Amino acid sequence: MALDNIHIDYFKQLLGEENAKIDSLHKVAYSYDATRESREPDMVLFPRDEKDISDILKYCNENLIPIVPRGAGSGFTGGSIAAQGGIVLALEKHMNKILELDTKNLIVRVQPGVINKDLQNFAESHGLFYPPDPASENQSTIGGNVSENAGGMRAAKYGITKDYVVAIRAVLPNGNIIRAGKKTIKDVAGYNIAGILIASEGTLAVISEITLKLIAKPKIMRSAMGIFDTIEDAMNAVYKTMASGVTPVAMEFLDNLTIRAVESKFNKGLPTEAGAILITEVDGNLEEEIQYQLELIESRFKENGCIEFKVAKDSKEGQDLWFARKNASQSISIYGKKKLNEDITVPRAKLPELLERIGEVSKRYGFKIPCFGHTGDGNVHTNVMVEDLKDLDKGHEAIVEIFKIAVELEGTLSGEHGIGLAKAPFMKLAFNEDEMNLFRSIKNAFDPNNILNPNKMGL
Amino acid sequence: MALDNIHIDYFKQLLGEENAKIDSLHKVAYSYDATRESREPDMVLFPRDEKDISDILKYCNENLIPIVPRGAGSGFTGGSIAAQGGIVLALEKHMNKILELDTKNLIVRVQPGVINKDLQNFAESHGLFYPPDPASENQSTIGGNVSENAGGMRAAKYGITKDYVVAIRAVLPNGNIIRAGKKTIKDVAGYNIAGILIASEGTLAVISEITLKLIAKPKIMRSAMGIFDTIEDAMNAVYKTMASGVTPVAMEFLDNLTIRAVESKFNKGLPTEAGAILITEVDGNLEEEIQYQLELIESRFKENGCIEFKVAKDSKEGQDLWFARKNASQSISIYGKKKLNEDITVPRAKLPELLERIGEVSKRYGFKIPCFGHTGDGNVHTNVMVEDLKDLDKGHEAIVEIFKIAVELEGTLSGEHGIGLAKAPFMKLAFNEDEMNLFRSIKNAFDPNNILNPNKMGL
Ligand SMILES: Cc1cc2nc3c(=O)[nH]c(=O)nc-3n(C[C@H](O)[C@H](O)[C@H](O)COP(=O)(O)OP(=O)(O)OC[C@H]3O[C@@H](n4cnc5c(N)ncnc54)[C@H](O)[C@@H]3O)c2cc1C
Ligand SMILES: Cc1cc2nc3c(=O)[nH]c(=O)nc-3n(C[C@H](O)[C@H](O)[C@H](O)COP(=O)(O)OP(=O)(O)OC[C@H]3O[C@@H](n4cnc5c(N)ncnc54)[C@H](O)[C@@H]3O)c2cc1C
Repeated sequence: MALDNIHIDYFKQLLGEENAKIDSLHKVAYSYDATRESREPDMVLFPRDEKDISDILKYCNENLIPIVPRGAGSGFTGGSIAAQGGIVLALEKHMNKILELDTKNLIVRVQPGVINKDLQNFAESHGLFYPPDPASENQSTIGGNVSENAGGMRAAKYGITKDYVVAIRAVLPNGNIIRAGKKTIKDVAGYNIAGILIASEGTLAVISEITLKLIAKPKIMRSAMGIFDTIEDAMNAVYKTMASGVTPVAMEFLDNLTIRAVESKFNKGLPTEAGAILITEVDGNLEEEIQYQLELIESRFKENGCIEFKVAKDSKEGQDLWFARKNASQSISIYGKKKLNEDITVPRAKLPELLERIGEVSKRYGFKIPCFGHTGDGNVHTNVMVEDLKDLDKGHEAIVEIFKIAVELEGTLSGEHGIGLAKAPFMKLAFNEDEMNLFRSIKNAFDPNNILNPNKMGL
Repeated sequence: MALDNIHIDYFKQLLGEENAKIDSLHKVAYSYDATRESREPDMVLFPRDEKDISDILKYCNENLIPIVPRGAGSGFTGGSIAAQGGIVLALEKHMNKILELDTKNLIVRVQPGVINKDLQNFAESHGLFYPPDPASENQSTIGGNVSENAGGMRAAKYGITKDYVVAIRAVLPNGNIIRAGKKTIKDVAGYNIAGILIASEGTLAVISEITLKLIAKPKIMRSAMGIFDTIEDAMNAVYKTMASGVTPVAMEFLDNLTIRAVESKFNKGLPTEAGAILITEVDGNLEEEIQYQLELIESRFKENGCIEFKVAKDSKEGQDLWFARKNASQSISIYGKKKLNEDITVPRAKLPELLERIGEVSKRYGFKIPCFGHTGDGNVHTNVMVEDLKDLDKGHEAIVEIFKIAVELEGTLSGEHGIGLAKAPFMKLAFNEDEMNLFRSIKNAFDPNNILNPNKMGL
């Protein structure tokens, strides 16, 4: 069902020709995200401000036109794809300004289209720190980060996007503009609307402004790496480190398959016989704090089978230690043309069991399944590598097995990438009918006509 | 409208006579909270488990019987008062067990009726730490803490209740049992139901189980106190300290009126001419960290007019420094028979202006308004002291002025005590009609028959 000319004209008049596009160049450019699934919208709109968003939504609501908010389109689950056609509301073009820095209250106010890394850089240029650092930091927008509750390497110590959002302005599907939360650290008046908008994947409201907490930047950072014979040793070392009172900024792991992949691609002298590598980073304001943390980590690692522990002497050596982790995702392509990657998460202490059972799935289905990720928060990027494209269905079956294992181990289908279209069919593995009905009634409370990002999240 | 005998019999049969009470002793005991407003329920029920809660709610929903969940009844806004009569669902009697400690994942699972301090002690007996410490820690329950999103002295560094809730089990008004959140640090599958239940004041669902994050207990704590000539100096010292990269565990203040009150009651040699006292606490694992923080605090304080800075040598001296703050609330009763206390919160840097304007209200209305509280998070306990009870209405007018000032300064009506009945009339000062309508539609999504804690939060 194509968009009526009368609607097209309305939007052109409202926003000007330059901000209301129906040419196929635009339709293609805004048809996909990082899943590489795609569907062309009928029109791409570039709102200039919150008022535009409100006018657009009101009109869509009255005329039952589906509309999908979009940041950078770097999502991994198809969240910004116009599943029913209609409109893509592209926020990165005009609504990308940092509006206010309040150094007294350590608060920054931004438009949704600001790119994550731009905000990080802006904060650092003022001696401050915005910790959430998804690997997509150079593309993904704060609006997209909030809508997916994006995490990053620093989550173990500094938390994820939700831990920095103090207030949100948003436009409801009926065009009403609401404010949720305050510049204050604490606010318990009214329901926690900001809390429910976080990770709502653009299905409840369009986020038009975000107020974030910043923190002071720690003065010293230091990286270290531990090499382990077995993945189980490494995973035990992780949770014992965390339980002993050190919270490293990052605690990332690579399994043997991933280590081999990076080595075969880059020849960095990585230990290709190792069962796992852990790469960690600590920070603080005093050298004594750094030493204290590194010593504790080293002893927990060595008590749990670490065969080599290296501390980076300077930031150059630190970067070398991190090289393998940063290049893991691209390197594993040696195992197959198509990568089916998921971001399941389990309670930290269940990681050894999770990885063992993924190993069994790998054997049973005959796919290589390299794993790496954020052990500090139990978030594992599992990659089912399919060499022969006619095996894709079997690959998806393996993924379903892995989802089931994650849920059995009290984990979740998604630690950070969300549900979108890609994981919608699996929601019923994790939620019962009562829970799904509650989700539906919340959706209905915000968006009774179901115009905003329909077909997502398995609702 | 009294409760029908047929309903009374149903509940007696369901729970046994001992858990279904209609005698006036019970009705009176469960008729009030710390506001001292009261209304007798028709019946008090003591569920033994989640299944009981589910059966009770289902029946109430089908028969349109209002029902109010209650923890310890220590709330400051009338949240647990049965405003329409009906049933009080008292959770502290049977549902007060700590169900599981998972030291590998640093997670504890509790029933809602567990008392805050019992949980703190339990965690500490395992070398762990549950930071949220409302002043009501000896009475208030975790279910009540979650329902109000309670804060405490340690909020500046360690956050508030919401920062520790990782999962919730709850019973919806229709009797359905839902799970929200996971034992994992990250979980973005589905809407953030746990997030909206926090601070929902028992109006959306009855919380039947809570999973909380614990952290490792820092080894060293140290208290310090700074004396200031003016409240403005003290407030400036606070935000400059926080902005310079130290985050003290606590940063509490007392104004001159409060200092005088404590001194007149306890004769502790407090500086009765001081405009304000700041009491702070830092923690860490190394003596060097403690020194680093105290030195930074001392220099920020002195740069901002601190005339005396004292560090406690040991925990006994620490307790002495804290004495005035811990006894502030009871001491100010010298200024009036009736204390109208509120817990407004503004962005930290607005504290000087807030307190100046409260001073003007005090002059204009002729009431003493001693203030103290959590400056670390901008949360001020303002106390309009009414000597002559015939001036109560005027006292309430003064409170309304103070609410308006808080909202003007981008603050909130409540930093921690919630809205309940007491602040319901003021919701429209803070929220516009669109926002109130959104709250109502969320209420309706959970509780379409409006049986659960009706008349609260100004809905
Ligand atoms: C190479 C790569 C690495 C990645 N690494 C990580 C990682 O480490 N951690 C992680 O969490 N994710 C990661 N991702 C996934 C992705 O980058 C994040 O989900 C990111 O938050 C998406 O931001 P975006 O601006 O691209 O949003 P989009 O993809 O455009 O949209 C994502 C969802 O948010 C909605 N949305 C966007 N803006 C708004 C708004 N203003 N109001 C309402 N809804 C909105 C959309 O409708 C959609 O449902 C990675 C992706 C890639 C391609
Ligand atoms: C002396 C004193 C000092 C205080 N200091 C502080 C402080 O420092 N910080 C602070 O934040 N508060 C403070 N309070 C306020 C109060 O203690 C908190 O709001 C506390 O969280 C209430 O817990 P409770 O168990 O007493 O809950 P109740 O008063 O019984 O109930 C509070 C609300 O929660 C709901 N509720 C309770 N349990 C459940 C459940 N299981 N499911 C659903 N809803 C439920 C009730 O319906 C009600 O709306 C103080 C109170 C007093 C009397």
